[in-house]
Amino acid sequence: MTTITVLGTGSWGTALANVLLDNGHDVMMWGKTQQTVDELNHSKTNQKYLPGITLNENMQATSDLKKALSFSDYLIMAVPTKGIREVCQKINREADSKKVIVHVSKGIEPQTFKRISQMIEEEIHEDFFTGVGVLSGPSHAEEVALRQPTTVAVASDNEAIRTMTQDLFMSDYFRVYTNDDLIGVEIGGALKNIIALAVGITDGLGHGDNAKAALMTRGLAEITRLGTKMGADPMTFLGLAGIGDLIVTCTSVHSRNWKCGNMLGKGLSLEEALSRMGMVVEGVRTTEAAFEMAQTYNVEMPITEALYGVLFNNEPLETNVKTLMNREKTNE
Amino acid sequence: MTTITVLGTGSWGTALANVLLDNGHDVMMWGKTQQTVDELNHSKTNQKYLPGITLNENMQATSDLKKALSFSDYLIMAVPTKGIREVCQKINREADSKKVIVHVSKGIEPQTFKRISQMIEEEIHEDFFTGVGVLSGPSHAEEVALRQPTTVAVASDNEAIRTMTQDLFMSDYFRVYTNDDLIGVEIGGALKNIIALAVGITDGLGHGDNAKAALMTRGLAEITRLGTKMGADPMTFLGLAGIGDLIVTCTSVHSRNWKCGNMLGKGLSLEEALSRMGMVVEGVRTTEAAFEMAQTYNVEMPITEALYGVLFNNEPLETNVKTLMNREKTNE
Repeated sequence: MTTITVLGTGSWGTALANVLLDNGHDVMMWGKTQQTVDELNHSKTNQKYLPGITLNENMQATSDLKKALSFSDYLIMAVPTKGIREVCQKINREADSKKVIVHVSKGIEPQTFKRISQMIEEEIHEDFFTGVGVLSGPSHAEEVALRQPTTVAVASDNEAIRTMTQDLFMSDYFRVYTNDDLIGVEIGGALKNIIALAVGITDGLGHGDNAKAALMTRGLAEITRLGTKMGADPMTFLGLAGIGDLIVTCTSVHSRNWKCGNMLGKGLSLEEALSRMGMVVEGVRTTEAAFEMAQTYNVEMPITEALYGVLFNNEPLETNVKTLMNREKTNE
Repeated sequence: MTTITVLGTGSWGTALANVLLDNGHDVMMWGKTQQTVDELNHSKTNQKYLPGITLNENMQATSDLKKALSFSDYLIMAVPTKGIREVCQKINREADSKKVIVHVSKGIEPQTFKRISQMIEEEIHEDFFTGVGVLSGPSHAEEVALRQPTTVAVASDNEAIRTMTQDLFMSDYFRVYTNDDLIGVEIGGALKNIIALAVGITDGLGHGDNAKAALMTRGLAEITRLGTKMGADPMTFLGLAGIGDLIVTCTSVHSRNWKCGNMLGKGLSLEEALSRMGMVVEGVRTTEAAFEMAQTYNVEMPITEALYGVLFNNEPLETNVKTLMNREKTNE
């Protein structure tokens, strides 16, 4: 049995805490919303994010970060990309020992193009920092909370963090593979949202399965090109945090990014689609970042460019599909 | 304008002939069934294989192989795997000039483990043989016949065959990429049917999207391992004939292999499922071939092995899912 602290009480943090509890570990969740904390402690449920699911009976949570940090030196950080730096700064104020931090978020910081582990490394004071890793892969939180078969990858430059994380999470419904390519695993998870938006559009336009598979495959090819320039191993994109996550995001109607793209394909403007979604669609910001990164790294990303034109320059959808199909002849 | 002969009047041969006609080429189809030949000539339809679709008005066909072969020295061979050697032997008897042969089939010969291009090379007499290629990728024939956006790869050891095929087929709805990895493109197309069967089973068992994406990703990993041992470039499996084709086959309810697997997942025996299908399910034979190939090439293929146990040794499905999840800890 190991003690583990999970930061963030959203659907993913809660589902992962549940896996760890099922494996017999002693887990403390930390969240800002007292109501959710109370619900986790008393009802063993999180109705806002995992409606209808009863969690492990040993679930416990606190809104006191100091208490959560003193509980364990192994932290699972399950907070949105835009909250990463702020939570790290809070850790600097409240921690009193060195921490291993494994984050489970998917995004790239706008403007700086920083990966999440880079943001964590920049923010956490060396007195409180042992090392960082990421856990990523094809994993709807609801299915994990329902204990349905799921596989993920854990990546870190630190081998001990990889194997420790694998040991803690591995169970008969949650299979964990180690991967030493931190950059590739983080980039795959973030950039796949661009392709999910594009696939949503093509589905909304009424194109078929051939077009969808084409966009996913050629989308993966351009993500791989950019990732490789940024230092990733191209083979990572063939794995769970690459094509695996891409498949789940592009073929599930529950995906926020797919849903938003689908509305665009059916004729809504970006403004209308975002207002109907009523929540952050990470892929929109990621498209903007990737468009700029493609220029910085001098990488050809025709799908990202076409999507950028549609999202930010009001270019017509059908014209951009035709442009993609009529690009110069090339090899794979 | 180029003259082209298409051998085979099934859905795929017909859809490809239609693409070539749309591009302004002079195409002659050859088929054994006089009724289909007459229908193609007079109604410009193929109701058995592409119901409700009106083809290019210049569609023409013959049941006279000699006439079809004298029409062009560039052949598209669209016949099932098990008919390849027989058609090649017929060509030896009826041809009077050297031919380029681009096949569009997906399979491996049982027992010999030969790829289709190898069967063609073995059979066609050198007096009638210029070279061979393969066209493959995520492409439901119906969608291509309806002129919906589609992408494919063409592979050959012969560069002239690759670029010629790309030039002939490329259009504003049919995008062709060249690939110099003939082995990888052929193996990807054949082995993906194993994974489609496995995904059908997991869907039939009621598992979720996480399990489906896991099977597709880890399935692709083991196909890649085997393919690489057989001489393929691992990057090919990241492309249209690899993951692209896998996506279309595993996520469409129209896929024969997925359908058969789905029946197994719902509790039918293999015999019952095959009898309800009423037609060849290529993945069943391919699973047997791949299981033996894995031993010959000494490659770890846990999904293929689990599927083989279910199909041929009556092993229970749920036990095999558990076995897959509880394998020794590993890296990606």
